[in-house]
Amino acid sequence: MDVRTATREELLKLHEDLQAQYNECCSKNLKLDMSRGKPGADQLDLSQGILTVISTNEDAVYEGLDLRNYGGLDGIPACKALFAEMLHVKPENVLIGGNASLTMMYDNIMRLWVFGDCAGNKPWSQQGKIKFLCPVPGYDRHFAICEQLGIEMINVPMNADGPDMDMVEKLVGEDASVKGIWCVPKYSNPTGAVYSDEVVRRFAALKHAAPDFKIMWDNAYCVHHLTDDKIEIPNIIELAAQYGNEDMVFEFASTSKVTFPGAGVACLVTSVNNMKWIKNLLKVQAIGPDKINQARHVKFFGNAAGVAAHMEKHKAILAPKFQMVLSMLEENLGGTGCGEWLSPKGGYFISFDAYPGCAKRIYELAKQAGVVLTGAGATYPYGKDPEDRNLRIAPSYPPVEELKAAMEVFCVCAKLAAVEKKLAE
Amino acid sequence: MDVRTATREELLKLHEDLQAQYNECCSKNLKLDMSRGKPGADQLDLSQGILTVISTNEDAVYEGLDLRNYGGLDGIPACKALFAEMLHVKPENVLIGGNASLTMMYDNIMRLWVFGDCAGNKPWSQQGKIKFLCPVPGYDRHFAICEQLGIEMINVPMNADGPDMDMVEKLVGEDASVKGIWCVPKYSNPTGAVYSDEVVRRFAALKHAAPDFKIMWDNAYCVHHLTDDKIEIPNIIELAAQYGNEDMVFEFASTSKVTFPGAGVACLVTSVNNMKWIKNLLKVQAIGPDKINQARHVKFFGNAAGVAAHMEKHKAILAPKFQMVLSMLEENLGGTGCGEWLSPKGGYFISFDAYPGCAKRIYELAKQAGVVLTGAGATYPYGKDPEDRNLRIAPSYPPVEELKAAMEVFCVCAKLAAVEKKLAE
Repeated sequence: MDVRTATREELLKLHEDLQAQYNECCSKNLKLDMSRGKPGADQLDLSQGILTVISTNEDAVYEGLDLRNYGGLDGIPACKALFAEMLHVKPENVLIGGNASLTMMYDNIMRLWVFGDCAGNKPWSQQGKIKFLCPVPGYDRHFAICEQLGIEMINVPMNADGPDMDMVEKLVGEDASVKGIWCVPKYSNPTGAVYSDEVVRRFAALKHAAPDFKIMWDNAYCVHHLTDDKIEIPNIIELAAQYGNEDMVFEFASTSKVTFPGAGVACLVTSVNNMKWIKNLLKVQAIGPDKINQARHVKFFGNAAGVAAHMEKHKAILAPKFQMVLSMLEENLGGTGCGEWLSPKGGYFISFDAYPGCAKRIYELAKQAGVVLTGAGATYPYGKDPEDRNLRIAPSYPPVEELKAAMEVFCVCAKLAAVEKKLAE
Repeated sequence: MDVRTATREELLKLHEDLQAQYNECCSKNLKLDMSRGKPGADQLDLSQGILTVISTNEDAVYEGLDLRNYGGLDGIPACKALFAEMLHVKPENVLIGGNASLTMMYDNIMRLWVFGDCAGNKPWSQQGKIKFLCPVPGYDRHFAICEQLGIEMINVPMNADGPDMDMVEKLVGEDASVKGIWCVPKYSNPTGAVYSDEVVRRFAALKHAAPDFKIMWDNAYCVHHLTDDKIEIPNIIELAAQYGNEDMVFEFASTSKVTFPGAGVACLVTSVNNMKWIKNLLKVQAIGPDKINQARHVKFFGNAAGVAAHMEKHKAILAPKFQMVLSMLEENLGGTGCGEWLSPKGGYFISFDAYPGCAKRIYELAKQAGVVLTGAGATYPYGKDPEDRNLRIAPSYPPVEELKAAMEVFCVCAKLAAVEKKLAE
């Protein structure tokens, strides 16, 4: 039955059935968490070997460098080389960080905020109201950085091939208070969209009214394929340089969802100019990130092919979870008008667009039934989803059986909320 | 011979002898580094066991928490408890960081600079010219943070029992633009001075004209004894609370010189109020520091007694190096008027006051003879030692034989510079 075309009688009957199903869900006293894109324990188990690849005093001196001692502001050469190979960039463009690309992004925004950019433009904090473009739905932790600093966020619609570039070009080209944009170019959080070659090219070629306009290119899912169609996107660092925009882009990646979320290695990729600017400021903030952990990664993987082989193992665990979620959505909600979703080829999420005005209600219903979802609205700046539609489903963390139980609840909640809404209209 | 009382003829003869000795030093083509307080490789070897205490998937789930996954903004409970015991504070006052207390200090200053303090006072960046007090000689990395932000630094003389508290009380009490002070209260960098109980009490009781005045209490050498006289200082966190100054103090410590400088664990200790303020801002910057490395430390040490026992092993390596440096200084420079120094009971440095106006010259002479010292002036804000006297000797890194060779050079340079100066006066 399609709720959009059902009669009031049909809806009332359906509501009764769904309410009964929902009550049954609640009676199970579930306690399930689909709120964050956390790898499951079985995925983490894949990297057990990394814990012991550096295990003796001899291991701790690597390529002539004592990993244990101070030093190495920008990372050890072998770790830069590994990320460079993964991201198809040059090692000289790579800065290694600690365990979180989020912190590298935050600190980078903070440098621009407090000190100004590499060309000597004024600090963002001294330029009055400034703005960031935010493709939506997007990643809540990106938005939180802007919100903390009072940077105004402007929603830009995400299409299947990336953000609406006509809108991006117009805003960036005409408004000098637009200082940046957040991008997750590959297997985007949460839609799974991959930026097309043309979208990447248009980003690299952006004409920017603000001389200090910056692209925050969060390539979080660069090697995180869910199918054998391993999509590659153009190298924006190289492309931007071709268009004379070399200092415009900061790219980020990490091994958080490759080895361990809490103990991986992050990196920042940017022009040599930006690198000098960063290191000159960073040397006051830090002596150097954990070199032992960098070497663990290098020895565990060997090279980018080693990373790719490891990601196949993640895929073997994750792909069936995604398939199950997608088939349950199709089975329970297909043709009902209670929601729409995309089938991602990589990344960590399934983006679900509920019947308009229902996302918050679904979140609440699921919560009361013991299933924690990412908060409704979280995928939009300020937590404000204008249509109250989008929910981010994170299938990775729960074991398959729990995920199945959680998705049963989710589907009942999605239908119940839609019918309630429809009846109230 | 004492250069201060020698005749010109005596000095000329001495100069000739010293020049010959110096030339001989140069002819050895030494390449020695005493520039930073880096532990030696033999010290790092002491912690080999920490590399493998977490080595299996089972190990990685600790007290019910999966160390590998996301989470734990303020650190794992067991690591907070370990630092709390070491520092005689409560776990609720401890925030765990990454591998560097320097970064925790920098980020803390940056929070005050950009967002203002926990009481809602305006960000320091919006208060015009602000000032920090800097006990001198002191730690160059502290000064670099102030310099980067344009915070004016005011020198405060260090005495054997801590900073000149009359001056501190006057400046802090009367000038509302004085927003903070850098302290290394125990085995101070570089003089080795330990703040007396009375000095700590006066700090805790400070009346501050600025409502947002903060003490940066860098307890870097809290367990780093060089003798059996294991000095303890009062707990400033508790004392400050007694004086109604609980939100005034941020204390820092780390295991950088306990386990590995590049892969240790750092912590910040402060009031519960400040902790809330920090976490509210920090949650946007970070998801959580490396929990596996925290658990490595907890399992390796067990408790504070385990840390203390481990520090005995460091002492066994370090104390003879310090003794050698001190005896060579005494033997070569005692009674010559070419320098003065203190004999520290802990920490990593020997502070050397050269014949006035000679520190830079000694640095240059040593460098040309292949011995790299910490830059002359580094122990003063802006690198400006008003009397050009202070040099920081860091005996820890070179093996004993190299240290001996380096100190021979150092003593010749100290005498040569003094005689040159004296002859030119």
